[in-house]
Amino acid sequence: MSNDVVVSADALVDYCAALFETCGMPRDDATLASLQLVTADLRGVESHGVVRVPIYVERLRCGVVAARPAMQVVRETAGSAVFDGGNAMGQIAGQRAMELAVDKARVHGDPVFVSVRNSNHFGAAAWFAEIAVRADMIGLAFTIGGINHMVPWGGAEAMLGNNPFAVAFPMRDAPPVVLDMACSVAARGKIIVAAKEGRPIPADWAVDTDGQPTTDAVKALEGFVAPVGGPKGYALTLTIGLLSTMLSGAYFGSEVTHMYDDLEHPQNIGHLFGVLPIAAFESLVVYFERMRKAASDIRGVRRAPGVDRIHLPGEREALLAEQRRRDGLPVGHGTWSELVDVGRQLGIAAPRPRP
Amino acid sequence: MSNDVVVSADALVDYCAALFETCGMPRDDATLASLQLVTADLRGVESHGVVRVPIYVERLRCGVVAARPAMQVVRETAGSAVFDGGNAMGQIAGQRAMELAVDKARVHGDPVFVSVRNSNHFGAAAWFAEIAVRADMIGLAFTIGGINHMVPWGGAEAMLGNNPFAVAFPMRDAPPVVLDMACSVAARGKIIVAAKEGRPIPADWAVDTDGQPTTDAVKALEGFVAPVGGPKGYALTLTIGLLSTMLSGAYFGSEVTHMYDDLEHPQNIGHLFGVLPIAAFESLVVYFERMRKAASDIRGVRRAPGVDRIHLPGEREALLAEQRRRDGLPVGHGTWSELVDVGRQLGIAAPRPRP
Repeated sequence: MSNDVVVSADALVDYCAALFETCGMPRDDATLASLQLVTADLRGVESHGVVRVPIYVERLRCGVVAARPAMQVVRETAGSAVFDGGNAMGQIAGQRAMELAVDKARVHGDPVFVSVRNSNHFGAAAWFAEIAVRADMIGLAFTIGGINHMVPWGGAEAMLGNNPFAVAFPMRDAPPVVLDMACSVAARGKIIVAAKEGRPIPADWAVDTDGQPTTDAVKALEGFVAPVGGPKGYALTLTIGLLSTMLSGAYFGSEVTHMYDDLEHPQNIGHLFGVLPIAAFESLVVYFERMRKAASDIRGVRRAPGVDRIHLPGEREALLAEQRRRDGLPVGHGTWSELVDVGRQLGIAAPRPRP
Repeated sequence: MSNDVVVSADALVDYCAALFETCGMPRDDATLASLQLVTADLRGVESHGVVRVPIYVERLRCGVVAARPAMQVVRETAGSAVFDGGNAMGQIAGQRAMELAVDKARVHGDPVFVSVRNSNHFGAAAWFAEIAVRADMIGLAFTIGGINHMVPWGGAEAMLGNNPFAVAFPMRDAPPVVLDMACSVAARGKIIVAAKEGRPIPADWAVDTDGQPTTDAVKALEGFVAPVGGPKGYALTLTIGLLSTMLSGAYFGSEVTHMYDDLEHPQNIGHLFGVLPIAAFESLVVYFERMRKAASDIRGVRRAPGVDRIHLPGEREALLAEQRRRDGLPVGHGTWSELVDVGRQLGIAAPRPRP
């Protein structure tokens, strides 16, 4: 971590919010988007944190993402809605859409699903699922990725995103249990690092341009990210992609543009959010007791040699966030330089790193 | 396939139904359960087909599964229900619960989720998701497995099932797109075969009793099935397990008994079924056109060398079922012998295999 800059999370939120505001976003939206990104960094999910600020700023500045979107509900029943994000940042459209799902479920007491179109890359899926948790609901969040990185099984042409989804379960007196995963064996970022260092990669991480497994990181980058579990990961990322787009009219497959390379066309990214209000199925007291016992069963198993503690999904992230809020947030040197540069271009001074 | 017996699927349905009826099941239920199992075999999902008939019959005969269950809805809102399976076969409880979800969605036009408790092993998840498809709804089916085979990540004690789930999307004039997957790298059946043949297994298939990866198939069988993608598969199987049980009060974790070894205690298996009626979100015409285009994009990609055709999830299974309905269903010799034996014990003659 010696190459990392350590900053205060609050100061970083303010800084990134100022950058977004300078791009024309209303202050509240700018702060919300910034908070989501810094929260991902706090949780150790750096791939979906402030590392994305430069591209988000670039897309806002050239107008391919709307700083002041006209968002609207275009279709609605008691338990469903179709939400048009008005080409907002995914962080903003996603927040409104998930809040809509929660509000509707509060009113009717039933499961609600909201599909979203005309949105953009929304960052970490866990954020949205956790919005439901705070209303005593199980939250589900699906999105299609902002780049086609993956091939259909047997294919040699990218037609699928590394699509992520999150499911969050409320706990009483403990962090929620949160699954948040995408469908590749390894993050593409790890392949980039291996290529830079001239190291080989495991044979199951990627396929080359012919769709054949490769341990050559450079060929892997020219090729495609491999799905987790082979055909399982293919079917899973396809399913998440369809859930995220077919109920809203967002882009899928050949319609998907490249978030980094195409600064001309709005991406029309789609999401699907779902909430299952616990109280529809069971008294909260009973549910929380079931979850406590389930968590206790998992935590209490005999451990493999060298393992200190069994974590529930999302727990490691919650603990890390707590520590980083206290001790400061490490930001990689490269990411930090880019962030400072963006501020320099926009006339915003970066926060002073901790010594 | 030279060791396989080839039978008519219809005759096999009748035979297995007769076995179940002899165990006290009403004829309609017996036929339905049998049809579900043979359909799994037709689709090439032999692990969830008639290979399970002997244990199902044994459990019915000793009364640990109810042949004539008292099923009931114990809680209900417009968009949700809690369904008590009355210790029915999972095939029967699952069918009624998914039909309830579809019926409720037809009435209200909204997403519906039905949680199930006091059920049993339900076979292949795809069957249930496809019930929704026939009503122009996206279907979701989750269940907890009937045996704890998997460890929490870092653990060395089984506390999780290899929990499966299915998601099915309606298509017009084509088989539905159906994801149906469990959370292990490889089916446990493959490890059993390797152990019998004295072959090593890939290092990512299983961990030994200390939770360490092993290529020794015998040690693997004493140990645990490895989750797909390591911690991802752990989080996924946990999530599916929680979805299947926390909203109904079905057993989870240390409460889960062993389907094959414990013939005394009802398993109280849980499921969760969900339906998203397309028409709530979009006109069916538009949805089907989106799906057609999406499928066409996937099928049309450049193929890896040696690949003849790109399949959508569930397509291979649908094609295989069509061929097997026509040409006869191959049943492994060992499975066939067991099936014939069960019939002999119950006084039911097995169908004559095709020459």
